[in-house]
Amino acid sequence: MQTNEQLLSVIENYLAQTDLPAEPELLYAPIGYSLAGGGKRLRPMLLLLACGIFSENIQHALPAAAAVEVFHNFTLLHDDIMDNAAVRRGKPSVYAKWGQNVAILSGDAMLIQAYRLLELIPRQWLPQVLSTFNTMALEVCEGQQYDMDFEQKAKVSVVEYMHMIELKTSALLAGAVVIGATLGGATESDCRKLRRFATELGLAFQLQDDLLDSYGDERLGKAIGGDILEGKKTYLMITAMSHADEPTREILRTAYRNPKLDNEQKIAAVKAVYDRLDVPRLTEQQIELRFDRALSILDTLTAPTERTVRMREFAQSLMGRKN
Amino acid sequence: MQTNEQLLSVIENYLAQTDLPAEPELLYAPIGYSLAGGGKRLRPMLLLLACGIFSENIQHALPAAAAVEVFHNFTLLHDDIMDNAAVRRGKPSVYAKWGQNVAILSGDAMLIQAYRLLELIPRQWLPQVLSTFNTMALEVCEGQQYDMDFEQKAKVSVVEYMHMIELKTSALLAGAVVIGATLGGATESDCRKLRRFATELGLAFQLQDDLLDSYGDERLGKAIGGDILEGKKTYLMITAMSHADEPTREILRTAYRNPKLDNEQKIAAVKAVYDRLDVPRLTEQQIELRFDRALSILDTLTAPTERTVRMREFAQSLMGRKN
Repeated sequence: MQTNEQLLSVIENYLAQTDLPAEPELLYAPIGYSLAGGGKRLRPMLLLLACGIFSENIQHALPAAAAVEVFHNFTLLHDDIMDNAAVRRGKPSVYAKWGQNVAILSGDAMLIQAYRLLELIPRQWLPQVLSTFNTMALEVCEGQQYDMDFEQKAKVSVVEYMHMIELKTSALLAGAVVIGATLGGATESDCRKLRRFATELGLAFQLQDDLLDSYGDERLGKAIGGDILEGKKTYLMITAMSHADEPTREILRTAYRNPKLDNEQKIAAVKAVYDRLDVPRLTEQQIELRFDRALSILDTLTAPTERTVRMREFAQSLMGRKN
Repeated sequence: MQTNEQLLSVIENYLAQTDLPAEPELLYAPIGYSLAGGGKRLRPMLLLLACGIFSENIQHALPAAAAVEVFHNFTLLHDDIMDNAAVRRGKPSVYAKWGQNVAILSGDAMLIQAYRLLELIPRQWLPQVLSTFNTMALEVCEGQQYDMDFEQKAKVSVVEYMHMIELKTSALLAGAVVIGATLGGATESDCRKLRRFATELGLAFQLQDDLLDSYGDERLGKAIGGDILEGKKTYLMITAMSHADEPTREILRTAYRNPKLDNEQKIAAVKAVYDRLDVPRLTEQQIELRFDRALSILDTLTAPTERTVRMREFAQSLMGRKN
């Protein structure tokens, strides 16, 4: 099996050679633009690695790998309309570049294009893969709806938040590995285990994303505090709210829109509360718990341990852990 | 085989019993609302009638019939956002009732729900049906994009217009009959013929729709002149533009936004030009040509004539013709 770098370039090549019609230009150009926008290709990588646990041959899984990536980019395209987001991966979003109607319709065509790729799946696996794909796709929509619901809700519990990110983030990773495993000929039991693996990995990944947004990552040099300035209900905010007394809650609820504070002060005020309530350590603990669970599930597969090494290493690199 | 009324109630029952989750409510309630909104169920009727030409049993075609109806309603849901349309079938559109973000996301879920229904297709036909469905779905998006492109275009030719409605209107009818015929066990040659039948029928239907919008239909008692007041490029407008001299073209281009005219005068001014240029008769001729072609294709199927009677009668009733 190829190295991860080789796998990534196989995916990039496959995505680049996917034929899109030239006309109507405003329907298809945004799809090509979205797919050329880069990203980590995390979901097709997971799909191919899952397939590779059970099968030497993973070529026949490439269309499905491309389908989950196209689907993922479709969700970003429509999310950017709903979030009014002008920038995606350092470039103008489709919404900002072409306007709302083009973004809606080319997003629709992109979702259909994902299903078009499923036509290339060997027919004995098509019913199973179509079903997994549909479940995954609906769960992602459900997660996005809960996320939007939370913006209007005064109080969101940790349980509700975990349920939301399980749908919005984990479902796509879970769908990808189950489709990959199915195409590798895995048993139903191994598919179920890999679903749990990817679900836990997705939760760990999302919580780490929440943590890094406020506490940063020297490797990324990313701007810090975006979630705080937007007043977003992240794992950190929800955990802090659940541990705080009423006056502290009021700080958390209002700091981001307090006209007396500049951005740095807003971020500092919220992070002071987080630190006092030990929120970073509580979040780290939850990340470790989820990530350890994910890795330990890999050991329970019927496949020999050496076949899961690649997946383990990929999961570790995804979480920024040394192998 | 059941009467058309019975078929219609079979479709309504099937759609009504399709389980949608209760939560998240803002994702799924708009889907149920859209599907309960009525409509002629034209596309699932065509699918089942096409299946019935080749097979006594049409039960197994019901999920696909529901899928094309769900898809059709998904396109209306998203079109209403793009067109800023507040009313759909006499009720508030999803867009007007729940807002843009809910309409985008529940529309996405509805499109996925259509593919969910395809899971219920007997597996030997799934690859073929999925492929036909995807082609149909992309063509409808292409038609919608061309339609939006035309709003920005100074000049649209009759050929361009016919190509647009072939995608926007006919493709869905064509997809429906081909899927129905496939599930009835039709040969590829018969599927191709039925595709041409539905394409011509769709063109006739759309041109008649254009004609009735300006010249009305005593049976419907519908308000007349909506297309004229919106300055829409319909078959009538495009035909008139292609036959008119430059001063007359200027009337056609500007009447709908002429501040000196009230609505009745605007409609009267444009229709006076249509009448002078014989546009209603030219349109009628084109409708007859397309409709006759459609019916004559039915005679060339390998199925005996008595098996196509139902489809013929349905096409006639669709066009408001006596059987």
